[in-house]
Amino acid sequence: MTEQRELPPALRQELRFNDQGLLPAIAVQHDTGEVLMQAWMNAESLAETLASGRVCYWSRSRGRLWRKGESSGQTQRLVELRLDCDGDCLLLLVDQTGPACHTGRRSCFYRAWRDGGLVTLGEPLIDPERLYGDP
Amino acid sequence: MTEQRELPPALRQELRFNDQGLLPAIAVQHDTGEVLMQAWMNAESLAETLASGRVCYWSRSRGRLWRKGESSGQTQRLVELRLDCDGDCLLLLVDQTGPACHTGRRSCFYRAWRDGGLVTLGEPLIDPERLYGDP
Repeated sequence: MTEQRELPPALRQELRFNDQGLLPAIAVQHDTGEVLMQAWMNAESLAETLASGRVCYWSRSRGRLWRKGESSGQTQRLVELRLDCDGDCLLLLVDQTGPACHTGRRSCFYRAWRDGGLVTLGEPLIDPERLYGDP
Repeated sequence: MTEQRELPPALRQELRFNDQGLLPAIAVQHDTGEVLMQAWMNAESLAETLASGRVCYWSRSRGRLWRKGESSGQTQRLVELRLDCDGDCLLLLVDQTGPACHTGRRSCFYRAWRDGGLVTLGEPLIDPERLYGDP
């Protein structure tokens, strides 16, 4: 059971959560700048992330905290949190273990629109069945 | 008057707009990887962006299309559109003229949370009064 955590007031007052209590969060590999993924955070997941140093999102589909890597083992260590100018988006500089994407690719943004069609960039680093399969 | 534009079906079918008809869009400088800003697109703004090559968002506060740079002159040229794995977030590789941020800074993500406080990174490239002031 994780202890309920609260955001530091000096941070909380700068954030403008949406009407569902969420903020979009963009995860970027801290040393290469690669945009890995976008997910959502509520106040609790952000507070846990800051306290633990391990990135925790809010899963909208599952309606619960989502400790990145809890199923796949592919965790994200928080290196630095940044806010945008109006406090309604978070940028997470992270150190990503292996692939960020559930397809086994490093980044979720592996599809490009080129010449009227979608092109797939990059191959999985790990077979997704191995990421989520039975141990 | 801009002609009404529609998304190519091969792209439209891969996108999962939210219940307000919007997708978050992350703008990254194409050659440096710097994360510049995050805003929102609806189908019309994305279609216009693809047709014109100039990034157009949907302004939630103003409830209308927002052709980036229309007030400030600081436009974004689209270099490549990417989609994430589940089609609910866009990554725009752009060529940004000058600052992306309304504060006159290159990036909107200029505030970092360090040692229990917010630190401002970087100074405005242009005085925001000059960006939006009378000509």
